[in-house]
This record gives sequence, C-alpha cells and structure tokens, in this order.
Amino acid sequence: MTEQGRTWGGRFASGMDNLTEDYTAGADRDLWPFDIAGSIVHATMLGRQGIIPVDAANQIVAGLEDVRGAFERGEIAWKPELEDIHTHIEVALRERIGAAAGMLHTARSRNDQVALMNRMLVRGLCDDARSALGNLIGVLCDLAERHASDPMPGYTHLQRAQPVTLGHHLLAYGEMLWRDRERFADCRRRLNVLPLGSGALAASPYPLDREFVSGELGFDGVTRNSLDAVSDRDFIAEFLAACSLTQVHFSRLAEEIIVWSTAEFGFLRLPDGFATGSSMMPQKKNADVAELARGRTGRLLGELIGILTTLKGLPLSYNRDLQEDKLAVKNAADVVLPTVAIFAAMLPALEFNLPRMREAAGGGFSLATDVADYLVLKGMPFREAHGVVGGLVQEAEARNCELADLPIDVYRAASALFEEDVLAVSVDSALAARDIPGGPAPQRVLQASRELRALL
Amino acid sequence: MTEQGRTWGGRFASGMDNLTEDYTAGADRDLWPFDIAGSIVHATMLGRQGIIPVDAANQIVAGLEDVRGAFERGEIAWKPELEDIHTHIEVALRERIGAAAGMLHTARSRNDQVALMNRMLVRGLCDDARSALGNLIGVLCDLAERHASDPMPGYTHLQRAQPVTLGHHLLAYGEMLWRDRERFADCRRRLNVLPLGSGALAASPYPLDREFVSGELGFDGVTRNSLDAVSDRDFIAEFLAACSLTQVHFSRLAEEIIVWSTAEFGFLRLPDGFATGSSMMPQKKNADVAELARGRTGRLLGELIGILTTLKGLPLSYNRDLQEDKLAVKNAADVVLPTVAIFAAMLPALEFNLPRMREAAGGGFSLATDVADYLVLKGMPFREAHGVVGGLVQEAEARNCELADLPIDVYRAASALFEEDVLAVSVDSALAARDIPGGPAPQRVLQASRELRALL
Amino acid sequence: MTEQGRTWGGRFASGMDNLTEDYTAGADRDLWPFDIAGSIVHATMLGRQGIIPVDAANQIVAGLEDVRGAFERGEIAWKPELEDIHTHIEVALRERIGAAAGMLHTARSRNDQVALMNRMLVRGLCDDARSALGNLIGVLCDLAERHASDPMPGYTHLQRAQPVTLGHHLLAYGEMLWRDRERFADCRRRLNVLPLGSGALAASPYPLDREFVSGELGFDGVTRNSLDAVSDRDFIAEFLAACSLTQVHFSRLAEEIIVWSTAEFGFLRLPDGFATGSSMMPQKKNADVAELARGRTGRLLGELIGILTTLKGLPLSYNRDLQEDKLAVKNAADVVLPTVAIFAAMLPALEFNLPRMREAAGGGFSLATDVADYLVLKGMPFREAHGVVGGLVQEAEARNCELADLPIDVYRAASALFEEDVLAVSVDSALAARDIPGGPAPQRVLQASRELRALL
Amino acid sequence: MTEQGRTWGGRFASGMDNLTEDYTAGADRDLWPFDIAGSIVHATMLGRQGIIPVDAANQIVAGLEDVRGAFERGEIAWKPELEDIHTHIEVALRERIGAAAGMLHTARSRNDQVALMNRMLVRGLCDDARSALGNLIGVLCDLAERHASDPMPGYTHLQRAQPVTLGHHLLAYGEMLWRDRERFADCRRRLNVLPLGSGALAASPYPLDREFVSGELGFDGVTRNSLDAVSDRDFIAEFLAACSLTQVHFSRLAEEIIVWSTAEFGFLRLPDGFATGSSMMPQKKNADVAELARGRTGRLLGELIGILTTLKGLPLSYNRDLQEDKLAVKNAADVVLPTVAIFAAMLPALEFNLPRMREAAGGGFSLATDVADYLVLKGMPFREAHGVVGGLVQEAEARNCELADLPIDVYRAASALFEEDVLAVSVDSALAARDIPGGPAPQRVLQASRELRALL
Repeated sequence: MTEQGRTWGGRFASGMDNLTEDYTAGADRDLWPFDIAGSIVHATMLGRQGIIPVDAANQIVAGLEDVRGAFERGEIAWKPELEDIHTHIEVALRERIGAAAGMLHTARSRNDQVALMNRMLVRGLCDDARSALGNLIGVLCDLAERHASDPMPGYTHLQRAQPVTLGHHLLAYGEMLWRDRERFADCRRRLNVLPLGSGALAASPYPLDREFVSGELGFDGVTRNSLDAVSDRDFIAEFLAACSLTQVHFSRLAEEIIVWSTAEFGFLRLPDGFATGSSMMPQKKNADVAELARGRTGRLLGELIGILTTLKGLPLSYNRDLQEDKLAVKNAADVVLPTVAIFAAMLPALEFNLPRMREAAGGGFSLATDVADYLVLKGMPFREAHGVVGGLVQEAEARNCELADLPIDVYRAASALFEEDVLAVSVDSALAARDIPGGPAPQRVLQASRELRALL
Repeated sequence: MTEQGRTWGGRFASGMDNLTEDYTAGADRDLWPFDIAGSIVHATMLGRQGIIPVDAANQIVAGLEDVRGAFERGEIAWKPELEDIHTHIEVALRERIGAAAGMLHTARSRNDQVALMNRMLVRGLCDDARSALGNLIGVLCDLAERHASDPMPGYTHLQRAQPVTLGHHLLAYGEMLWRDRERFADCRRRLNVLPLGSGALAASPYPLDREFVSGELGFDGVTRNSLDAVSDRDFIAEFLAACSLTQVHFSRLAEEIIVWSTAEFGFLRLPDGFATGSSMMPQKKNADVAELARGRTGRLLGELIGILTTLKGLPLSYNRDLQEDKLAVKNAADVVLPTVAIFAAMLPALEFNLPRMREAAGGGFSLATDVADYLVLKGMPFREAHGVVGGLVQEAEARNCELADLPIDVYRAASALFEEDVLAVSVDSALAARDIPGGPAPQRVLQASRELRALL
Repeated sequence: MTEQGRTWGGRFASGMDNLTEDYTAGADRDLWPFDIAGSIVHATMLGRQGIIPVDAANQIVAGLEDVRGAFERGEIAWKPELEDIHTHIEVALRERIGAAAGMLHTARSRNDQVALMNRMLVRGLCDDARSALGNLIGVLCDLAERHASDPMPGYTHLQRAQPVTLGHHLLAYGEMLWRDRERFADCRRRLNVLPLGSGALAASPYPLDREFVSGELGFDGVTRNSLDAVSDRDFIAEFLAACSLTQVHFSRLAEEIIVWSTAEFGFLRLPDGFATGSSMMPQKKNADVAELARGRTGRLLGELIGILTTLKGLPLSYNRDLQEDKLAVKNAADVVLPTVAIFAAMLPALEFNLPRMREAAGGGFSLATDVADYLVLKGMPFREAHGVVGGLVQEAEARNCELADLPIDVYRAASALFEEDVLAVSVDSALAARDIPGGPAPQRVLQASRELRALL
Repeated sequence: MTEQGRTWGGRFASGMDNLTEDYTAGADRDLWPFDIAGSIVHATMLGRQGIIPVDAANQIVAGLEDVRGAFERGEIAWKPELEDIHTHIEVALRERIGAAAGMLHTARSRNDQVALMNRMLVRGLCDDARSALGNLIGVLCDLAERHASDPMPGYTHLQRAQPVTLGHHLLAYGEMLWRDRERFADCRRRLNVLPLGSGALAASPYPLDREFVSGELGFDGVTRNSLDAVSDRDFIAEFLAACSLTQVHFSRLAEEIIVWSTAEFGFLRLPDGFATGSSMMPQKKNADVAELARGRTGRLLGELIGILTTLKGLPLSYNRDLQEDKLAVKNAADVVLPTVAIFAAMLPALEFNLPRMREAAGGGFSLATDVADYLVLKGMPFREAHGVVGGLVQEAEARNCELADLPIDVYRAASALFEEDVLAVSVDSALAARDIPGGPAPQRVLQASRELRALL
C-alpha cells in the first residue's frame, strides 16, 4: 500500500482529484464474500505450490477468515478513499497479519479478481433465480391442477376466441418460466469456468495450479485465454437477457391480472395484502404489484441494453467501462428475484370469480369454431364450414344473441348438414374434445402439469 | 391518517403484505423540497379562495415551513411504513399543527402532487444541465482559442485525412454540447406547465385558482387536460433523451482522449488527478475517467429505453408503472451532471503534445487533397485530379515516403500541370486556405468560438 | 470516374471484394431529389463565384434537371456497382454532358453531400409528421367536441375512478400529440443549417458562398464547424426520439381501443374496414390495426436505441458506421407516418356504445370521491371524509350494491353531516362540478379543444 | 376462400380499408419452404389418422409439391390482397387441385402455422450461424497457430500493459465466438418443439398424431401448452440476444482493426478488397467493413430491444403485435450472417506488420510487471515490488527511456535485490514465462487452439 492508500499509486506524483474519486466509485461493496473465498483458495494454492511459504499462506487464510467474520458482524466500514472492496479486504488483512498480507497478491491482479468475483456473483444469482422460479412453477402447477376443469374464455387479440380452462391458462406461464429457468441454467453452465490465473491480461508467470483453485471454488474448469478471461462480460449480458425475458413474462401475467381485476372483466379480486388504495378515491383497490412488475420490465430492458451498449466497440482487454457491469446485475436481480417471490405469494391468494369466468367462456360466439368443426365432421371442407358459421355469427349479432340461441331453422337454412344435436355444443363438450397433448381438456392439463413438475 | 399509517387504507381489512411494502417502495425521498413548496402555495391558494379558512391556511403554511427546516437539518428519518415522501410530510405536519393538517389535502390528490413534484425535479435538473453545459462550452472555447493555430490531423475513419487545428477539433464538441443545452431548454419549456388541480385524474370540483399557483411556483401556464396531466411522463422521456445524447457526445470525446493518450498516438498525457494506475503493472496510467464516461453511456441509453418501455401500452390515466420514472431521472442525472463537471475540470488539465500533433498533421498523405486542389486551380476537373493524385500516393507508398518527398519529376510525369510550387503545399498553407465559415483556418476558429460564446 | 466505376478507386490495385460490395451497400437510393436539388444550387454557386466557368455551371444545371426528369420517369436503374445515389447521379450527368460533369464535385465531398441529403430528408419528414399530426389533432378535437358531454369512466390503474367524458379522454391524446408535433418542430429548427462547404471534414479551400446556398435550399444558416457538420447525426437521434414518443402515445391509445372493444368492456365496435377476422374462428373481429400500432412501438424504440448505440464511442469525424442512419430514419418514418394516417381515418369510424359508457361511468363506486367532497363542503377535513366514505364503500361491497343504493340511514350512521341530498350526487353533477381549466366539465372540454385548435 | 380473397372474411360486411391492407402487411413472403413442408406433413398425418380421406391427402401432397416447384421457379407472384404467404399457398393449391385444397386447413389455424414457420425459420438460422461461426473459429485457430510466437503489446485501457502474442490475442475472439455458437445451439435446442396442433389457441378437437408430425419435421418433441405455443416468441428474443452478443464481439474486433490500421499504430494494412477510398482524398484507405460491422451493432441491439418491447405487457394468447417478429429476425440475420462471412474472408487477408508489433510489445514499460516479478522471486512481497518498480518507471519516464535502458546502478539504488540479470528480462522471456493454461506462452497458445478446434 502506498501513502495515498491505493494499490497502484507508486508512480503518481499528485493525488487523485476528488471529482475523480467520486466519478470512479464502483458498486462492489457487497461482494466481499466472493473476494474472500477466492483469496483463501488462492493463498492456499500459493502455499501448496511453494510460491509463497506455507506459513505465510496459513497466516493469510486465518487472517482472511477473521476478516470475513468482521464483515459478517458489520464491523468493517466503507471508506471511499479505499476505492474498492479488494482494497478494503487487503487493508483489513494487513491490520491483522501485517506485511505477510502483501504476499496474497502474488500472481494475481485486480482484473482477474474482479472477473472471479463477477462470475461467483452471477453464478449465485442464477442459482437463486432457478430456485425461485422452480418454486413459482410449483405454485402454478398447484393452481393449474386445482383449476384444471374450470372454464374461462381463451383470448386472441383480447377477443374471446374459444374456451380454455383457468388451469390451462396458468400453465402457459409455467411453460414460459420453465424456459426462463433453463436459460439461467445455460448461463450458469457457460460462465462456470475459473478466470483466476489470467493476471491483469497476460496470465501469470508463476506455476499456478489453476485446476486446484477451480475445484475448490466450485468451477467446472478454467478459462482458456487470459485476454478473454479478464474482459469477458458475456455472462453478464446473458444473465440480463434471461432476466429481461423473465420480467417480460411477468409483464404479460401482470397485464392479465390488471385486466381481469377490472370491474368490466370481474374475473378476480385482489387480496388486500397485494393491492393498494387511493389517497383521494376511497373505493379504489389497485393492482399495484402487478403494475410495478409490468412497469419494471423497462428497468430490465434498460439494464440489458445498457451493458450491451457499454461493451460495444471496446478493444481488448480490460477497460474501465466494464465497471458498470455490477450495478446492472444488482439492479436486475433486485427487480427479478422479488418479482418471482411476490408472485409466488400473490397468485395463490387471488380470488377468482369462477362462475363469471365460466359464463364468459361460452359468450362472444366462442363456440363458433366448434360449430364449424361439427360441419367438418359431417364432411364439409373446413374453409366452407368457416364461411357458413361466419354467416350464422352475423345473424346472431343482428339478433343480439349467442349462437346457441339461434333457432335450428336458421342453422338448417345455412346448411342442410345441421341437425338438432348442434345445439348440444357447449363449453364443456368443447373442452373435452380438445384431448390431445398440449390441449385444454382437463386430463391433458393435469398431464402437462405433471410433466412440468417432473422437469424441475 | 388511518391506523395503518397510510392515506388510503380506510377500506382495507387486512394490512399490506410485507413483500408488497418492499415491492412498492419508490425513490422519492429526496423530493421533499418540491412537495413542501407546492403544498405551501396550494394551502395559500385554498385560503385565498375561501376553500379552507384563512387561519387554517396560515397554520398549514407555518407548519410546512417548520417541516422544511426539520428536513434541512436532517431531523426527519425515513420510515418505510410511511411509504412515500408525501406521507412523511403529512405526518410531520400533523405532529406540528394537529387536525388542521388534514385540510391541506383538500382538492388535491397524490397523483397531481406526484406530477407536480416530477416537473419541478426535472425542471431543476434541466437548469442544472444547462448551466453546467454552458460552463463547459466556455471551457472548450477557451481551449479552442488557445489552440486555434495548433495543427493536428483531421481524421475520417480514424485515418488521417486533412490537417485541422486542435482548436477546431475541440470546438466540434462545443457545437454538440450547445445543441444538448438547447434540448434541455426545449424540454424545460415544454414541461413547465402546472399540473396541480388535476386531482387524481378528473380535476377538482373546488374553485381553485390554478393561475395563481402556477405563477407562484414559476410555471408558464396550466395543463389543459387533467387525464393527460397525471399520466404525462413525456418530459421524463425527453429529459432522458437529452441526457442520452449528451452522454453519447461525451463517449465520443472520451474515445478520443483514450486513443490520443495511447503510446502509439502520443497526442496527450493525462494529468495524474484524472488517471488511475494498475495494481499489477507499475507503469500504467489509465484514462479511467474517460472510460467510465464512455461506458456509462450504456446506463443512459438504458434509462431512456427503460422509461419508453414502461410507458408503452399503458392505458390512461395514472398507473403505478409510472413510479419507475423518478429512479430513471435520478440515475441519469447522477451520470450526466458529474460527467459535465469532471470534463470541465479535466479538459484544461490535459497536456497536449503539440509538436507531435503538428508532425502527424502533415503525415499519412494528408495533403493529398490539397495537391488535387492545386491541379483543379490549374483547370483540371476535380475527378481527374483525384485520379492523378491517387497515383502519386501509390508511388509514394511504394517508396515509403510522403508526397512532399517525391521528386518533382514524378509529379510532372503524372501531370504536366505540376510546377515547382506544388512542393510548397504545407500544413499551414492548407489550413490558411480553408478560410470560409465553419473552416479550420485559425481566424475562422476564433470567429466560431466567439459566435458560440455569444449564444450562451 | 475510374475504370472500376467508383469515385475513389484511383489508388486501389485490386477490385473490391464482392462480399465487400454487398456488405457496404447503403439505403440511399430514394434520396435523389435531395442530392440533385443540392447539386443544382452548388453548381450555380460555383459559377457565380467564378470557381468554375459559368458555362460549365449552366451545363451542369441543365444536365441535372434532365437527370431529375429521368429519375421521375423511373428511367434510371439501380446498379449495385455504382454503390450510392451520388455516383448514380454523377454517371447519369456524365452521360448527358460529358467531362463537364467532373466540375460539379469541385469543392464538395461525399461527406458533406451525405450530410446535406440527410438534413433535407429529415427536414421533410418533420414537416410531414407535423402536418399529419396537425390533421389528427383536428380529428381528435372534432370528436372531443362531439362527445364533450358523453360520460365514461375515468380510470386509474384500469380501475374505474371518477367519471369523465369521452371528449375529455380523447383530448388527452390531443395534448400528447401536440407535444409530439412540437418536438418535430424543435428537431427541424435545430437541424436546419447548411452543412455544404464542410468538405470531407476540413471545409473547402475554395471561396464558397455558403449563405447563398443556404438561402436557396431553405436553410436558416450555415454550420459553424466542419468536423461537426460531417459527423453530426444528432438530428437523426432527435427525430427518432420524437418518433418513438409519438408511437408510444399511439400504443397507449391502441391499448385502450383493444381493451374497450373487448366483449367485457363493450365500449366500442370496430368498423369492418379497420378490423380483421380469424381463419379458424368465424366470429372474431380483431383490432389488428391497434395491435400493430402498439407492437410497432418496439420497432421505433429499436431504431432509436440503434442509432444511439451506433454513435456511442465514435471518434471524429465521419466514420462509415454512420451509414446506418438512413435506414433507421426510413424504418421509423414508415411506421409513424402511416400510423398517424390510419388513426386519423379510424378514430372517426369507431362506433362507441355511449349508453354503456355512461352506465359504467357511475358504477364501481366512482362517485365515492364526490361523496367525500360533499362532507368536506360541510366542514369535515378531507382525510377524515376519505375514511368515512371508505367505510361506506366496504358496506356497499358487502351488500353488493353501489353507494347510491345504500339507505340514507347507513350514511347517517357513518356521519351526522349527511343529509338526503347526498343521494343526488350523480355522474352529471360530478362532471358539472369539475369546472376548472383542464377539467372534464363539458364546457371546459369545449374550451380545451378550442385552445388546442388555436395552437395549430 | 371468400369473394374478398381472404380466409376470414365471411362475416365482414365491407371490404378492408386500403390503409389497413398496407398497415397490416407482414414480412413472410420468403417463408414458403417452411409452410409447404409443414403442410405436406400435416396433410399426410390427416390422411393417416383418417381425419380426411387418404385420397384427398395424397392429392394435397402432390399439389403442394407442385406449388413448391412453382415457387422455386419464381412463378408465383406476390399479391398484396392475398395478405400472407399461407393464403398465397392455399390459392395456388386450389388452382391446382380444386376444392380438396380446403381440407388442408382442417385441424389447423394460421396461428399454429405461423408458430411452426417461425420455429423452422429460426432453427435454420441457428444452424447457419453455428456453421458460419464454426468456420470462422477455424480461421482464427489457423491464424493463431501461425502467429503463436509473434509478440504484440497486450493492452488494458488501450495502454500497453504486458506482451502477448498476436495468436493469443486472436484466440480471445475465438473464445467469444465459441460461446456465441453455443448460445445459438441452446436457442435451437429450446425452440425445437412442434407447435402444430395448438390450433388458434385452444388446440384441436381432432385426433391428431402430433408425434408423427414432430418426427417428420425434425422436431425433438411437441409443445405442452397450446396457449403458450401460439404466443411464445421467446426463441425470437433468444435468437436476437445471441445475434446481438455476436455482433458486439465483432464490434470489438472491428474497433481493433480500425485502431491497428491507423498510421499511428501501423500494426496492419487493409487488403484492397476489404477497404474503400475517399471521393475527395486520394490517399485514404478506410476500414469500412470493420466500421459497418461496428456500426451495425446498433441495428442488432435495436432489433433485440424492439421485440422485447413488443412482447412487454401482451396478454395471452396470440396478438397481432407479434407479427413484428419476422422482420426483426430477418434484419438481424441479414447483419450477423454476412458479418461472420466477411470476417472469415477478411481476417486471413489482413497484412500484419509483425516487426512493428514486436517492437511495440517491448515499449511503454510493458515489462515492468516482469521486473516486479523478478523481485518477488527474490523474496520481496508483491505490493512492495510494485512500488519499487513504479519508482523505476518514473525515473525512466524522466529520462525518456525504457526500463531496460536504465543503468544497473539505478536498479540497485531502488532495491539491493537487483542483479545484472534483470537486464535480461525481455519480451520473449516474459512470454515464455507465462506458461500456464490460458497463458500467452507460444505452446499454450497452440494448445488452446487445439482445444478450441476439438470443441467444434
């Protein structure tokens, strides 16, 4: 350490400008667990390889464990002039073990320390996301099974199209979140190689045992190129992309919760614990949680585009631009993880108005396709049947009634193939008929739920 | 206030879920100056209009001034359960003046309070940005005047193209930043209408004097539509767009500082106060400030795209999604304003290597166009002259020399129009010849600088 | 022209790689009107200034007018090997007037030609956007005046909040679009300076009369810095930002059209001319136009972020990266202008279900605030009144009725201030009471419409 | 087919507005191979399952093969009034086989046809990208092996830091592109499930054999939820994210090519086939391909953010907003695939100035870390050694020389541990010392290249 309290100040005649100190401040202060864990293994390896004396290695390890305790107990205050978390740890270590602390930084640079810390951070967040998503998918499966036979309108273009079930609808989100979970797994798999040993950019001239360090820190292997290792932020971008798509999925579910809880739809009531009121209008009960989940999609897309923009055009290897990565990760995780958690709590608490959903499932001519299929089963080509039923819909609209309310004569006039049994086409018959893999027939919904659970 | 300490809880049977409290937390705690200022004028107006008793109005005003003092002295702690800054102020006021505090919220909703606060916040930041940019443009003009005659290579495609001067080059950034400043002015002008009186969405049934409030709070008029007033976040997007383009400009200047301070270019040395070193490589002197300015462009673009994404598809009027706006504004201002400030400090401290820049200005065949113009002045069409000089460049490249080092015979072989005086084409003659408005001739640079200063 | 058919090939030993020809192809082929217009004025000026013979100037002008005719008649085919529109025009001119064509490029570079063409393009599109938006605002004013007294629910959080009128609601979009129109005006004003004379980057050594050219081409002045002039794409970003916000506004209106035309809301029927059906479900009538307007917001945000990303970190002056600008402008204009046009046609054709909107305006406890205001007028502080009415809403919800259906005893039990006349609170009385500037009282809506029209 | 020539027009009283026809036009006209392939298998399956007569199925298959031939021969003109590629194919089929064509659409909707076509399109593009990237990685390995021992400066912050080799530097890009290739593989794996059978949203009531169709069309399984299947565009977003990161990597390499080919760096000459010149400056040779690759990163980021924005807030299931997906995919592929191809051609053609790179590798105090490591090997803690060498650098800078040029006395004065052999520290010794996995020692570069090749 130099008198300016910085690790690199030896050659600098004058101190850093205050503006510069503020401007260059990073966002790594919570990352001490990763740096300490990495340092303990690094020191152990240095000792094993004879690069530093084993005694010194032991001293460093013991000192770092002491420092870890101090962090855990909140005893280590942040000092802006110490610039980053690495220096805080180094200073704390030096206070405990003196000059031997200097040996820890043998064969290691801040650049590969940063790379290590970033990978451990994102790896942990991927695990958190996978675990939370797995839990939420379980919640969706529970709900899907409970509502496997409860009809609701299926929508395209937000127009009632054909009946589905509430269970089928909720499982669609289960599928989306399962893909999200897989993306976090892919991200984790790809990032899980040890960068340590890459030095500042050109690797280390010491006989490091990178495989040992990799194994101890839970990595699956070591990076193959030191320049790439210190400048690679792909895993940040990939993590943010996975987070973005996850939040986009929540924005879709949120939109539906908002629309369904309007007076006009009336499909659900929000539980008090997840709604807010108005300072002015005493009657309001607003889906603020859903609205914030939807609105915060903007934050996620922003963080994703931010890191990609930051990376654009950067020459190799490390550039300070990359410091922006940690804040992006933190901002993204601080939206996505709480969103997963609050939806897992909120969804089971939603009060669905099942009778109203059932009623709506049969309205808006949503059985028209089934009537067309009736004709097809009697031998009419589909395109022709589609035209016939289109005419019946126009007739029913003119009479302001549903298809089932049209007299059988009107059907017969449209096509001689119609018989009385066309009037038996119902929401439940329509659902039961959709009995193929991926379909909304109740037993298919149960099956899809089981299959999804089995993947977790 | 209800027992739950919220302004809207009257109808809620159970308390808000803890997850919900965290999830719905906003970022408005620093905005008390705007809310208090607005409340003081609102209360005054309510008294003047006889909507509340004048005594009550006076009591409220005095109480709010007391609350303001308490905020200024840091005496008011943030309590998450009070949810937003408006409630903190209301509670603090109630502690001071009791039940009369309840009258402050007559004819006002949180939605139009939020709208007011946001506009005052962004208005102030526009003023800050304009002022800081004006100062920095002044710095650039100073530097441009100092270096109006110092040649440097002008680049296209990062290839030396034609000589310009350092002053001319720096003034290009003066022009960009002047446009940025104008954009902040446009944003301010457009946002500067009073939303108060719009209520939650449907305006107020009380006989408010909106013009009075507008005048007292420095607005230029009142909003014309209450639904728009509470849901309009255009000014946020416009502010973020202005910030983004400003930061993009800094990213360009930053790129140049980084490139120019390489060993290979060697055009400038970074002052110690604005550079950092390496923990591993003792010789390094890195342009971290410039790199962070460049890298943080990602943050700005992210905040801009974030708010636009958040706004996309929102129905009228207020939706909780909009809460995300303040964080975006704060994040953007926290990058742009310090960037303007640190460049204003750093630019005059850069140590330019003027002899090296002059030498480079004449290298790389950068006088080739002037040689072509020489032929044009002797009557050759430009396209033909371009071809002739292209051949000379190939010849010089083959001989590994500059154009001026070619023997006059080579010139003559290429065109009979060449005479000895072609060898007098020099960096200084080329610069002097570019004597039109917008050109790099030294007196034109001084003139452009004067014109730019005059606009501030 | 060289044998390779390129304007810059003199020094190149081998031809351009085919891949390169494809890879570097631009998107300027429709921009001949701007290039020809600029070239005519440039040639005229060169003649006036004696830089080229007046005869040659006249010949060039006549030739260019002939070329313009050929373009207008579609007689000039695109040849990829001619690379850009400038070369196409040059070749066509040379075919007509021979060697004199070469003089046109005296004192001009492709870089400042491109800069000129871009500014003329965006200037024209700003004018188009302003004109189209002005027309649409007129349509909204017409509709607002027609529906100034037709009640509908005002929403916050998509929950019915308080009554407004359909006219008031539509005028909110009038306000948004008026701000958009102003942003296009600001963009136009800022870009409208002549870049010609800036050369490739370092201005021209010829005694150009830039003011003459500026005046002839409708510019308000000339650029002050040649480096900035050839590399400035601020106006592209500003245009795309204005387009983005405009499309965001349409996405909001589109969302409402989609939601309002659901069976559940039933506020409007889509005219056949602006809806589509389903290949499978004969009954469907989908708001595809609105959905595409909403979906294409993504394109706009993409184009905006694209150009900002492209600009990030570019050193001065011209870099080929900038070629991407024209495609972004074209893509954006191709979404926004047709969106404005189709909404101007579609909005008057929407069939609103006014009785249903009126009925909904009074439902969902949307008069609760007015009941609270009733108490405030009788002297109760607002916060207290809010609590009292919150209790009444809970009571009504328990009874599954609206507030107006509660017996007066229930009111009296909640507060002794209630008298029989509280039952007279109605949608129309609530609307009439909101009689301040910006409010939904019918005469205020008419006034706001008049004010907005007056601004056009 | 109805008289309006649309598949869904039965119920529409008036024709579609012209504006609407233009506004709703999509970008699917090149996708006929996927639609025809899917239709052939669908018809075959319908016949096998007895849903339509086997004769009809055979007729349809034969007819579709005929239509495919017609498309291949360019005989089928695009008719805007036929709206999408599905209708074009249906009309062409009907022209060939008459009424039986109508049976093809039994048990199928445009929504699941679109979903199928999109997946086949993106699957093919993933394969193209993987193949092209594999080829380019091979090119990089070739170059890395050729230049495994050629020193160049390794940079951090674009400051010379420590020597690496050109081969090591190029392999860093090999690593990036390998991760890109893996991401395309993950995207392909995740998307490769058959959506057909999902109908418009609610699956089909016919006894389809989805597994048969899946197998015939090369899918790995079938979708588990019909609502998700027709509205899922995750694979589009994932593909665009993979494209974006790929292009970001090219932007980095492009930046280096641009910087390295400056006169100041002089590390490489561009081959004529991949460079362009200037219309004004005869000497210019610009890295336009690299600049466009860098600039087009903006397009990619734009397409990515565009689709994510489009998806945000969409309720289930299909909405017309989703039509925007194909254009985004096409725009992205049209940038990325040609970029991969042109870099594979350009990189081997770059003319590196190896002597200049070697010279630069030893300049700028880039052996300072090795001198510090010299002291560490003699027992000095690294932090102390770092300070000592920092002082030597300052001394050398003051003398305007390199470290190796300092007299041994100066070394000794700084630390008694220095001996004569410190002067033997050289670029080659430094490289040879970095002999750990991932390091730049020549044999390690060769090993990394072999490992990378083995992964392909």
